[in-house]
Amino acid sequence: MEALERTISRIESPSDEAMAAARARQDRLTKPQGSLGRLEELSIQVAGITRSPRPLIHHKAIIVLAGDHEVAREGVSAYPQEVTAQMVRNFLRGGAAINILASHVGARVVVVDMGVATDLKESHPQLVSKRIGPGSRNIARGPAMSRAVAIRAIEAGIEVLEAETARGLDVVGTGDMGIGNTTPSSAICAAITGAPVRDVTGMGTGLNDGQLAHKVEVIERALSVNQPNPHDPLDVLAKVGGYEIGGLAGVMIGAAFRRIPTVIDGFISGAAALIATELAPALKDYLIASHVSAELGHRTMLRHMGLEPLVDLGLRLGEGTGAALGIFLVEASTRILSEMASFAQAGVSEAE
Amino acid sequence: MEALERTISRIESPSDEAMAAARARQDRLTKPQGSLGRLEELSIQVAGITRSPRPLIHHKAIIVLAGDHEVAREGVSAYPQEVTAQMVRNFLRGGAAINILASHVGARVVVVDMGVATDLKESHPQLVSKRIGPGSRNIARGPAMSRAVAIRAIEAGIEVLEAETARGLDVVGTGDMGIGNTTPSSAICAAITGAPVRDVTGMGTGLNDGQLAHKVEVIERALSVNQPNPHDPLDVLAKVGGYEIGGLAGVMIGAAFRRIPTVIDGFISGAAALIATELAPALKDYLIASHVSAELGHRTMLRHMGLEPLVDLGLRLGEGTGAALGIFLVEASTRILSEMASFAQAGVSEAE
Repeated sequence: MEALERTISRIESPSDEAMAAARARQDRLTKPQGSLGRLEELSIQVAGITRSPRPLIHHKAIIVLAGDHEVAREGVSAYPQEVTAQMVRNFLRGGAAINILASHVGARVVVVDMGVATDLKESHPQLVSKRIGPGSRNIARGPAMSRAVAIRAIEAGIEVLEAETARGLDVVGTGDMGIGNTTPSSAICAAITGAPVRDVTGMGTGLNDGQLAHKVEVIERALSVNQPNPHDPLDVLAKVGGYEIGGLAGVMIGAAFRRIPTVIDGFISGAAALIATELAPALKDYLIASHVSAELGHRTMLRHMGLEPLVDLGLRLGEGTGAALGIFLVEASTRILSEMASFAQAGVSEAE
Repeated sequence: MEALERTISRIESPSDEAMAAARARQDRLTKPQGSLGRLEELSIQVAGITRSPRPLIHHKAIIVLAGDHEVAREGVSAYPQEVTAQMVRNFLRGGAAINILASHVGARVVVVDMGVATDLKESHPQLVSKRIGPGSRNIARGPAMSRAVAIRAIEAGIEVLEAETARGLDVVGTGDMGIGNTTPSSAICAAITGAPVRDVTGMGTGLNDGQLAHKVEVIERALSVNQPNPHDPLDVLAKVGGYEIGGLAGVMIGAAFRRIPTVIDGFISGAAALIATELAPALKDYLIASHVSAELGHRTMLRHMGLEPLVDLGLRLGEGTGAALGIFLVEASTRILSEMASFAQAGVSEAE
C-alpha cells in the first residue's frame, strides 16, 4: 500500500508552460491555426505530460495484461476459459491482432501473466510473470480478491511500467486478455458511475440476447452479493474486479508518475481507468482515449472521466488494438509539432 | 474526351469472389468475428478492389494537386493568393503537414501543378507540371474554364495516376492546395446535391462571420451567373470548379480503372469525388473516405455519395493530411487480413 500511495502522491499536473510553448509553436507552423484539430490538441497534451514543448517519441510499448476470471463459469462468455492461455501463447508467437497492429506502429508488445488459469512461465521465458493466482474468484458468489491482493495487483502494474521505462518508453498503450473480463468491467462501471447494469453490459465476444440477459443478471448478483463501496475504488476492484484490471490501473498510475502518456484501449482498460482515476484524480490529464468501443457502456465510462475518444471504428477486440491506433495518432501529432516548418522558415505569408 | 470515356467505360465492379474469400478468412482469424469492426470491412473492400483475397500494400502515394482560383479576388479566403505557390515550394522542401504525415505512413508525396498563378517548374524539376494556366477564372463572373479544359484537367489527373502506377502504387491518397478552393468546392456541392449554399459553405482557412456571409453570397452569385446543369458533371466542373478539382477527379477515375483503392481527403477531394462519381457511378466502390472535415458541407458530400468517413478529428487543412491517416488504416486492415494467425494455426478454441 505504501508503494502505491507514494506513487500516487507524486503524480503532478502536466506543465502549463510546456503546453503554452507547444500551442504557440503550433500556431506558427505552415497551416491555418487549429486546422489539424485533435492532432494539435493531442500534441499539446503530450507536451504538457512530458514537460517538453517538442516531445519526441522513440520508444513505444503496448502492455497486454492477461488474467482469468472464475465468473466465466457462470456462462458469461461465448468462449471457453482455456482461450485466455491460448491467446497468451498466440501473443508470444506474434499471431494475434495486437502483434500486427503494434508492429504496424512500431511498438513492442509486452505480455504479462497477472493470473491465467494455466501457468505458462516455463515454456515462455519472455512472458512477464506477475501471477497472483489461477484467476480472480467468482464475483457472483463473493469478492474477486482481498483488498491486499487488489493493492498487489495495482503495484504489479506499476512494477511492469517501471521495468519498461528502464528499457525506454515515450508512450504506452494498455491492452488486456481474459475470458469473461467484460463482466467485472461492467460491474466496475455500474458501481462507480451509478449507471444501471443493463445500460453498461454488452455482448462481449459475441453473446446472443438470452445470454446477454443472463450476463446482466450475473453482474447484478455480483453487485448485490458484494456491495462494493462506490467511493472506495480499492473496494470496488477487490470485490468485483480482476487481476489484470488492477494491473492495468497500476500501469496508468506508474506512467503518470513517470510523465509518460498512456493511450488506453477499450472497455477493460476503461474499467481500469475508472479505478485509477478514482484513486488518483490527477491521472486524468495523462490519459488518451484511443477509441470508443462497440461494447455497450464504454461511452458511459469515457463520459464519466471526461475523456473524448480519438476514433470510433466499431472495435471490440481488446488486446490493446485500439491503443495501437491511438499511439499512431499520438506520434503523428508530435511529429507535426516537431518537424513542420514555420511560416517564417518556409517564407509563407500569414493570414491577412 | 475519348481517353476519359474509354477509361470510365473500363471501370469494373470490385470482385465479389475476392471479397467473399477475404470475409471467410477474417472469420477464421484469432478474434471474435467482426470484433475489428471497420478495419475488417476495409480489408474486404480492398480485397474486392484489388481482386486479391490477401492484398498487400507496398507502394503508397499521396498526390497533391495545386491550382489557383481567380475567385480569390472576391475576398473569399483568409490568405493571399501567393500562398498557393509558397506552399507548393514548402511541399517540395518537405516542411508541410502533408510531408510529415506522408512520411509517418510511408507514402511518397507527388506534387502536381495544375495551374498555380506563378510557374514554378524551372526552379523545381521534381514538380510534376500539368499546368493549364495561371488559375481557373473567376466563377463569380463566368465559367471557371471551358468544357474542353475541364476534360483536359480530368485527363491530366488520369495521366498523373498512370505515371505513378508505373512507379508502383497499391493505394493512393488525394490532396489539394489552392487558395480559395473551398469556394468552388461549395459551389459544386450545392449544384450536385441541391443543398442550400449556406448549408455547405464553411470558414475555409479561417473566415469570420461577416466574411463567411460574403463568401456565401459570392457562391450564390457563381451559381446564378453560370447556371450549371446538376445532371452534367462536366458542366458543373467547367462552370464552378477548378483545375485541381478536375485533376483530382481524374486521379480517382484512373485509380479505379487500375483497380487501386483511393483514399480521399476532405472538402476539396470530396467535391472532386462528387464530379467523379457522377461521371462514373461504378467508381464509388473504389473510394475510401478518410475523415469528415470540420468544413461545413463535407458531411453532406459524403452522405450524397453514401460514404462513411473513417475518422472525425476536426481536421480542415487539406493537402491530403486526412488521406494519410486513412492510408495508415487501410494498410493496418490489410496487414491484419494477411498476417494474423487463424484459430487452427494458433491452436485457439473457437466460440462455443
